[in-house]
Amino acid sequence: MNAIQPSAPSAVTGTFIRNAWYCALWAESLPADKPVGCTILNEPVVLFRRADGSAAAILDRCAHRFAPLSMGKIVGGDRLQCPYHGLEYDGSGACVRSPYGPTAPAGATLRSFPVQERHKILWVWMGERAADPALIPDFSILDDADPVSMTICDSILVRANYELIVDNLLDLSHTAFLHDGLLGSPEIAAGDIKLEQEGDRIIVSRFSRGAPMPGMFALTMPNAPALVDKWNWIRWMAPSTLLLRSGVCLTDSDPETGTGYYGIHILTPEDERNTRYFFTAVRFNMLTEGAENNQSINAEIARLRRFAFAEQDGPVIEAQQRLMDRAGGNLAPTLLPIDAGPVRYRRVLERLQAADRAG
Amino acid sequence: MNAIQPSAPSAVTGTFIRNAWYCALWAESLPADKPVGCTILNEPVVLFRRADGSAAAILDRCAHRFAPLSMGKIVGGDRLQCPYHGLEYDGSGACVRSPYGPTAPAGATLRSFPVQERHKILWVWMGERAADPALIPDFSILDDADPVSMTICDSILVRANYELIVDNLLDLSHTAFLHDGLLGSPEIAAGDIKLEQEGDRIIVSRFSRGAPMPGMFALTMPNAPALVDKWNWIRWMAPSTLLLRSGVCLTDSDPETGTGYYGIHILTPEDERNTRYFFTAVRFNMLTEGAENNQSINAEIARLRRFAFAEQDGPVIEAQQRLMDRAGGNLAPTLLPIDAGPVRYRRVLERLQAADRAG
Amino acid sequence: MNAIQPSAPSAVTGTFIRNAWYCALWAESLPADKPVGCTILNEPVVLFRRADGSAAAILDRCAHRFAPLSMGKIVGGDRLQCPYHGLEYDGSGACVRSPYGPTAPAGATLRSFPVQERHKILWVWMGERAADPALIPDFSILDDADPVSMTICDSILVRANYELIVDNLLDLSHTAFLHDGLLGSPEIAAGDIKLEQEGDRIIVSRFSRGAPMPGMFALTMPNAPALVDKWNWIRWMAPSTLLLRSGVCLTDSDPETGTGYYGIHILTPEDERNTRYFFTAVRFNMLTEGAENNQSINAEIARLRRFAFAEQDGPVIEAQQRLMDRAGGNLAPTLLPIDAGPVRYRRVLERLQAADRAG
Repeated sequence: MNAIQPSAPSAVTGTFIRNAWYCALWAESLPADKPVGCTILNEPVVLFRRADGSAAAILDRCAHRFAPLSMGKIVGGDRLQCPYHGLEYDGSGACVRSPYGPTAPAGATLRSFPVQERHKILWVWMGERAADPALIPDFSILDDADPVSMTICDSILVRANYELIVDNLLDLSHTAFLHDGLLGSPEIAAGDIKLEQEGDRIIVSRFSRGAPMPGMFALTMPNAPALVDKWNWIRWMAPSTLLLRSGVCLTDSDPETGTGYYGIHILTPEDERNTRYFFTAVRFNMLTEGAENNQSINAEIARLRRFAFAEQDGPVIEAQQRLMDRAGGNLAPTLLPIDAGPVRYRRVLERLQAADRAG
Repeated sequence: MNAIQPSAPSAVTGTFIRNAWYCALWAESLPADKPVGCTILNEPVVLFRRADGSAAAILDRCAHRFAPLSMGKIVGGDRLQCPYHGLEYDGSGACVRSPYGPTAPAGATLRSFPVQERHKILWVWMGERAADPALIPDFSILDDADPVSMTICDSILVRANYELIVDNLLDLSHTAFLHDGLLGSPEIAAGDIKLEQEGDRIIVSRFSRGAPMPGMFALTMPNAPALVDKWNWIRWMAPSTLLLRSGVCLTDSDPETGTGYYGIHILTPEDERNTRYFFTAVRFNMLTEGAENNQSINAEIARLRRFAFAEQDGPVIEAQQRLMDRAGGNLAPTLLPIDAGPVRYRRVLERLQAADRAG
Repeated sequence: MNAIQPSAPSAVTGTFIRNAWYCALWAESLPADKPVGCTILNEPVVLFRRADGSAAAILDRCAHRFAPLSMGKIVGGDRLQCPYHGLEYDGSGACVRSPYGPTAPAGATLRSFPVQERHKILWVWMGERAADPALIPDFSILDDADPVSMTICDSILVRANYELIVDNLLDLSHTAFLHDGLLGSPEIAAGDIKLEQEGDRIIVSRFSRGAPMPGMFALTMPNAPALVDKWNWIRWMAPSTLLLRSGVCLTDSDPETGTGYYGIHILTPEDERNTRYFFTAVRFNMLTEGAENNQSINAEIARLRRFAFAEQDGPVIEAQQRLMDRAGGNLAPTLLPIDAGPVRYRRVLERLQAADRAG
């Protein structure tokens, strides 16, 4: 296990990486016929679909009187009309039509944001540098997912800085306490942690032999035994997305014979203290037969994961944020061996933040 | 149509004119037997009626321990008693009785505010200069209004600077989009706008020939045709009141044969980000017979106007304010021909603000 | 009656005395099997009971990732386990166990606070100096109180500085107005006030002959007459606790033949604008027979006292705080003879505050 750096970092950097792709919405959440507004890195953004189905993202603030375009409507197939006085913008942010004259007003061009629809997600590039689609985090697991294996695409708002949620996910020993019975149990807290780095990606994995069967996984294994081998593997992709692979198998058997799911965890900072947390899951090696049976299991996994994030992680992370803020924000955490993942990703994050600013 | 000034002003000045009359309450909202508190230009004000029915307005904060007098009661006909320890004030703000001694405490005099009850409204003068009743905005249309022609006196709170609401009302082209079907429709957005100035008053008017009948006016015209001539005329009276005259007539007929209403729009800033918006309407040339029929039409007009202000204008104006605040407040609007009224009133407003400060 | 100092003090000092005992909880509110968190002088504090029933109080913020320990659980009888990653602390604040290694992490010691369980209350010492149990305010009246004479132990949150509540209680002339009919009436507002000082304790008392029977006391006196002699006596004990003795007797009879209650009023500042207000009452000279009858009277006294504090005092005090804050906090009260108690205690408080800082 990797050594922890002696110098304790501050709890969060509080800095955003702007030249990066962020999940604005699940692609299915953007209908063909109306715009949807969201906030990313403190910017108001409105997304809408053109007649050909392609998505556009522009500043959600009309140049005329600053009304939110997301309260307006799509007209003429490709234009977003301001709800207040009717100026019309195209997907590039240009004001292309005014009800008040033959030409659109000069200077009424809004910032537009590069958008990519990939892996069932609408990604928006928030920086000033050229957007590089190759930098979109790899969630190709979602591309070909059999609908019978996939849970709903969901999200919650967590009133805390996104870095606290990355810390949460890169140190899954917390499942032993915070999700006791559901995702882990204290017996397995001290399992061995393996830390890997692939370029800027950080991977943390652990394996527990003969662990109590967690409630979440018992759902997926018919006639589940009381003790199983259990593993999880999680990969952080800058700046704020994580892919988990978690499963169980019969004790001492080949993990490949086991079952489990990929957990998709995507964090989009609305601002320094609010984070939109998108999640879904894709099961692998399903041991239960029948689409209906599996859809019912999927629904229960979706419900329990939402419960774990919204009712167990969320309250603790929001309390952390409040306690840190009340202390003036200068607290340095006492690091433990389980912080290997969080410490390593922070080192990469700080390097990427510096490069983002320098750019 | 008047040219727009090339230099775009900031979105709001954020400055109040203190030497002016503000609507504290609809006169009918102040009962004979208990005080009512309100906030005007950041000041806590309490109004109450003396035994002779005349209204008084004093600071809503007892000199003793700063309890709000509006939580107290009227005693002895003319005195307002503090709810906390019982000091009694008269309408001039003087503490005239104490339960704790034969004389009232020295130095316990509260600021009083000149009040005028006129046009069914209680007007309070917030400045330090002598109050001039001649400066009360002219809403004499309310004085002799036949009750059969008048809607209820209503108000809402809008969480935005009052200047954004003046902008809204002095540019009624927004009715074509925000109140589509109810008060206007996109076909008429580009109608000609006429701008007039009478001293410090700004009047904006427009006329649309052969416009779709708006839902609001269809109520008032039996056997209404699909297309009508439609006009509105609105006058701003500093600092924050507006009188609208809006109506419809058969296409190409004399407008004087048409029907419509006077809209009363009175804005009282509670503070920089909250405005109390008072409104009512008085119909003219009523084409429907019978008091009961007309009262039922009045109730529907009142309901629809409240809907338009609270559910259509309010949310957009509050979003404007939030978007401007999030941007740091330094946004300059891209002005359009329809902004002739807002631009002209702002010029007058800024001159009056300077005179108010200089005073 | 003592003269009022000519120099009007500011409305509140806004300073806390740190080297003092504060009520964290009613002792009965801390169960044997789970921790309870609270906020005292801006500090997050968690209390829990060891296996032997003794209470401990430590900082409610894990040294590792700053999760609140009050969301965790008691393990092994004497240790508080963090809900997030499972570090375990003993009552001294030392981290004594980690799931991640044979030894607890170095440097993970939390601040602990001296605790005393006395007079049915858990007292916590918030200062840096040695805690002196002799300084615990004397509420021995609660020690031997017959359960048949005691109301429930209750508390409310008041969104105001605690000094405004001390002002409220040390000037009970407010009962004549704010609690008219329930605890006093305007006829008795001007009763004579007697002010005494015993060391740092301030006692304010008053006696009203032939006063209207207050509703609260009518409950306790069978066949109550319309007029009675009524008295109250209240003692402030620094920094923020008060003991009231209040009662009624037949007019011109010996007060010792009357009946009434001790009111326990204990204020714990959560922060500069929020105060936890603990209260209960112990009746004396009960004139009604039967435990059941008296318990029913106690329940009604408890309900009415909660009503008086939460629905009468609370709203006025919170409005005071808002009005003072809106005025910029620089208001100086106009003092009255009834302010003898508040003025005197403030003089003591300011001396104790200076000593606390100097310490």
